[in-house]
Amino acid sequence: MRNLKMTVSYDGSEFNGFQAQPIGRTVQGELERAIRSIVGHEVKIIGSGRTDAGVHAYGQVFNFLTHMTIPVERWPFALNTKLPDGIIIRSAEEVNLEFHARHFSKRKIYRYAICNSQYSNVFRRKYEFHISRYLDFEAMSEAAKYLVGTYDFTSFRSTRSTVRNHVRTIYRSEWVRDGETVYYYVEGDGFLYNMVRIIIGTMIQIGDGKKSAASMPSILAAMDRNAAGPTAPAHGLTLWQVMY
Amino acid sequence: MRNLKMTVSYDGSEFNGFQAQPIGRTVQGELERAIRSIVGHEVKIIGSGRTDAGVHAYGQVFNFLTHMTIPVERWPFALNTKLPDGIIIRSAEEVNLEFHARHFSKRKIYRYAICNSQYSNVFRRKYEFHISRYLDFEAMSEAAKYLVGTYDFTSFRSTRSTVRNHVRTIYRSEWVRDGETVYYYVEGDGFLYNMVRIIIGTMIQIGDGKKSAASMPSILAAMDRNAAGPTAPAHGLTLWQVMY
Repeated sequence: MRNLKMTVSYDGSEFNGFQAQPIGRTVQGELERAIRSIVGHEVKIIGSGRTDAGVHAYGQVFNFLTHMTIPVERWPFALNTKLPDGIIIRSAEEVNLEFHARHFSKRKIYRYAICNSQYSNVFRRKYEFHISRYLDFEAMSEAAKYLVGTYDFTSFRSTRSTVRNHVRTIYRSEWVRDGETVYYYVEGDGFLYNMVRIIIGTMIQIGDGKKSAASMPSILAAMDRNAAGPTAPAHGLTLWQVMY
Repeated sequence: MRNLKMTVSYDGSEFNGFQAQPIGRTVQGELERAIRSIVGHEVKIIGSGRTDAGVHAYGQVFNFLTHMTIPVERWPFALNTKLPDGIIIRSAEEVNLEFHARHFSKRKIYRYAICNSQYSNVFRRKYEFHISRYLDFEAMSEAAKYLVGTYDFTSFRSTRSTVRNHVRTIYRSEWVRDGETVYYYVEGDGFLYNMVRIIIGTMIQIGDGKKSAASMPSILAAMDRNAAGPTAPAHGLTLWQVMY
């Protein structure tokens, strides 16, 4: 038995989220279908975590067990020929049998993209949230810094979240400008349901002058979803990297 | 009567070319439908030229005549709300009544994108031609230089082309690398049918070592479509800018 770990990119606009579910085409469903067509039987993959409908991935990671002895370096090409073009396996490696893509993940990086120009970029419209009005990025950059550290992120989690422990550690939280697009990178040991999108919705309010950057600590301290801003749209968000 | 000149971006993967035709959704058809919904009657727009099915535009230009007195700076926003999201008007200005987007165009710039990496980039797959094998970009860059000047481009035009004069002047012809993507920029006083795509197909043969860079002058001199390489796929090509 071999345990294969793979890195996959996908265009979230073409799938109904990562996790397999009864209705709609999902990334996990497409991956399992492609693997099945190679190994000849049902296979269950383990993702590093789910991504919501509309959220993209550059470096999502998953693993699965197989008896197939195809050399590991041939797997990406073999699977890519069976996958829809919105999903691309970028690498594969054999790992210890105990490796588990969700349990072993140590840190994740998410990236959120905002196109802050008068009109959206037609070639990136599915991957960037377009905001034509002025945003105060200095204030947003200042706000971002307050999130680095270990905090209870209850204010920044969907009330539909069912996990009990809301304490997470954030190692990096910053905005980077590239022309008319501004990217928010956030690296943490884990993220609550909708956490990055609520952080973004809150920072957009700060960019709009509706909240001050200095209000971030009190929003965290409130431990109340109503203290934060709205949930930003899914299509600006990309699961960038998963670290083990 | 006012003559409005507009710059438009579009995602060629979602339309059946620029020019209005009986079958399929075209960029011109969508623009004329959107303008009609604002002015209340049929309008015929004049594009700087057609783009083939699958070819994108960053800066296509068109003009049309209207009696509407909406301030010119409001037109892009008004039209964008009526257009599908794969078409974005980027700017509008009022020009002299004699201005004609096709007849007055002096130069055009096209850009062709090749993703030269093992796997394609999922977020740019519709705008880049993916080639995983090694390409000799030094040879391709050398080949590109031979096209600068005034030449008869008969070898680089589709045999379905009906224009008689095949002499065109090229002002810029060069490859620019940006990470795993390489862009070819070509600026000229005009382009024959499929000309850029045949230039690319020929340069890919040079990158593959099937032809030498130094063979470009003899390919031009042959004035025979068979002397050049195949027509590269449409989806890597973008009409970048039209100059007046």
